[in-house]
Amino acid sequence: ANTMLSGLPTTIFSVMSALAARHDAINLGQGFPDTEGPADMVEAAAGALRDGRNQYPPLAGLPELRTAVARSNARFYGIEVDPAREVVVTCGATEAITASLMALVNRGDEVVVFEPLYDTYLPVLEMLGATVRTVRLAPPRWDLPRAELAAAFGPRTKAILLNTPMNPTGKVFTAAELAFIASLLAQYDAYAVCDEVYEHLTFSPARHLPLMALPGMRGRTIRIGSAGKSFSMTGWKVGYVTAPAPLADLVAKAHQLLTFTVAPNLQRAVAVGLEKDTAYFTELAEGMRARCQQLGDGLRQAGFGVLPCDGSYFIIADITPLGFTGGDVAFCEQMTAHAGVAAIPVSAFYDSRGVTIPDCYVRFAFCKQPGVIAAAVTRLQAVR
Amino acid sequence: ANTMLSGLPTTIFSVMSALAARHDAINLGQGFPDTEGPADMVEAAAGALRDGRNQYPPLAGLPELRTAVARSNARFYGIEVDPAREVVVTCGATEAITASLMALVNRGDEVVVFEPLYDTYLPVLEMLGATVRTVRLAPPRWDLPRAELAAAFGPRTKAILLNTPMNPTGKVFTAAELAFIASLLAQYDAYAVCDEVYEHLTFSPARHLPLMALPGMRGRTIRIGSAGKSFSMTGWKVGYVTAPAPLADLVAKAHQLLTFTVAPNLQRAVAVGLEKDTAYFTELAEGMRARCQQLGDGLRQAGFGVLPCDGSYFIIADITPLGFTGGDVAFCEQMTAHAGVAAIPVSAFYDSRGVTIPDCYVRFAFCKQPGVIAAAVTRLQAVR
Ligand SMILES: CSCCC(=O)C(=O)O
Ligand SMILES: CSCCC(=O)C(=O)O
Repeated sequence: ANTMLSGLPTTIFSVMSALAARHDAINLGQGFPDTEGPADMVEAAAGALRDGRNQYPPLAGLPELRTAVARSNARFYGIEVDPAREVVVTCGATEAITASLMALVNRGDEVVVFEPLYDTYLPVLEMLGATVRTVRLAPPRWDLPRAELAAAFGPRTKAILLNTPMNPTGKVFTAAELAFIASLLAQYDAYAVCDEVYEHLTFSPARHLPLMALPGMRGRTIRIGSAGKSFSMTGWKVGYVTAPAPLADLVAKAHQLLTFTVAPNLQRAVAVGLEKDTAYFTELAEGMRARCQQLGDGLRQAGFGVLPCDGSYFIIADITPLGFTGGDVAFCEQMTAHAGVAAIPVSAFYDSRGVTIPDCYVRFAFCKQPGVIAAAVTRLQAVR
Repeated sequence: ANTMLSGLPTTIFSVMSALAARHDAINLGQGFPDTEGPADMVEAAAGALRDGRNQYPPLAGLPELRTAVARSNARFYGIEVDPAREVVVTCGATEAITASLMALVNRGDEVVVFEPLYDTYLPVLEMLGATVRTVRLAPPRWDLPRAELAAAFGPRTKAILLNTPMNPTGKVFTAAELAFIASLLAQYDAYAVCDEVYEHLTFSPARHLPLMALPGMRGRTIRIGSAGKSFSMTGWKVGYVTAPAPLADLVAKAHQLLTFTVAPNLQRAVAVGLEKDTAYFTELAEGMRARCQQLGDGLRQAGFGVLPCDGSYFIIADITPLGFTGGDVAFCEQMTAHAGVAAIPVSAFYDSRGVTIPDCYVRFAFCKQPGVIAAAVTRLQAVR
């Protein structure tokens, strides 16, 4: 069969993880922690398997998790939502993003996206028949190009797809940048799908601010969170969507076509996690910041240029100072094979049909144990 | 936002479950068992949370589950598959169906479906821009209308979507019917997506035969199974796709866009389930057959016409003998409110734009404890 999907490459995350395994390399590619999340959540998930609730939960999610999501919106951002009508639980943020786009986008609608971008965005928009308007953020600071963004909006703009804290750049959109985006959404009567899976992974003074919390945005924003990222259980695949009721209703309908519902025991464990005290979230971010610092320092010592990072699991290094001119893809392959460290070429986060895709950047994941980061740095320094 | 999904009604399964809860009715609507699946699988799922494997498993599924799926194909049907390249684990059969259609269907392709049909089929095909050719099966025996089916095929036919054992009819396609479908697929070089979630729930002499097991069909069939249905854990949402490698590759790409992966602890528990001895599967079917019989007898005593049933969780009753002329939807609403028994109107399984949709049939789920079925029958007899 020859379909749209035939042209889609296997995701770079799987490709590099497989290459890392083949070479027994330290895997700083795919973004997942190498330690488990909170033990009480593991026990909650195990216990919740045993009391006879293993049949279909409600389509939009268990009431206890939807309530926990609503409370977390209020606690962290002052966003008040009705758990019964404005929260939908999904099989991870991947499903949440696809379902949100299905909820909003009709064929021919224009959708604004920022490049670099996560690798599911474009194929999903293509499936839905959207016309994509790409706005590139420029390294090293990835500042918002306001004039260009404004020019990307027009009468056919249906939505913007926003990822903050941003993968792979580690950029956290500022209040001023978000206000500018909000003004465009209001002006063009458009919606935002906000992929905020790294919401609890920002490094002060940077702080996550949901676009939804801005004046006028409550009714036109779909906000997506991830238990995998907030609780270091990336395999659990529990995501949550917060949206005004009419949009949440459409997201639930998309969810009905994609997966229908999410394992109840994992939902209940995530509800436990979302009710954790603020110290848990602060420590999660502090720990991650220390690893970001450690890896950034090590990369600099190994001769890389290192870009600023305000959050997420990822830091970008510039390979130019190393004198390597074969491009980021070859660099990552060789680094995996010869230095024994795997990372992700940042060019994989660009529309492959684009011109002049930067090819000197490599994304490293720092959501790893300090000893693992130290070992990776040692390997990189050895081959310098 | 006004999108394609705006017109999609909330699934009848959720609507009737909610109505059942409101009236404290016995819920014979949505198809889920009211007892839990095997205790050893619950323990396997709980244990698998505790040994440090809660991060992303491989995109296509854990090797142990893919191997178990391959072995189950060989054991039950003599279908030999390569677990590394021909099995994809999904977030339930719902995702498997959507991903399989995404893998095969381009805009403008024709897809043949049988009516009555499961309620996600048409909206997913619409999203993909397929042209749907609907072939109606006629009650009470739902025999294959061969001439009509042949006429539905043509040069633009890309695939047929086949559900056997069939929801809501309880029909199990015969070897002769499948051979006829196979001949059309070969003649028109088309594919089949086979929703076989009730594969282990057939009542002898009826026996499930996968289309994939027929000569010439191995390379053009995508076969979908469901741990929820085979192990009475509908909330776990673990499905599995068996397909020739080139198609499995496309299904995996769709899966990458929809959910990416499935919780590893549940995958490992399902692998345990699939390795159960044949007695488990035989007893599952025997138990279900007894309940089908019990409910069918009770419905007859309560004055319903009862249609034949060879498998699945469901039996269809004809309300005509009761003298009710308000249609199946009103009947189900009134039965829920006044008799305290919820069921599903079969008209919900028809394209709502169709003409002369039968409205005298009601689907009852018998995947319930004998005492629950007896209580439901008592309630129905009381209001007769
Ligand atoms: C879903 S696999 C990729 C994980 C991730 O978000 C990343 O590495 O960018
Ligand atoms: C996914 S909810 C519906 C369950 C089911 O398969 C049915 O009741 O038909």
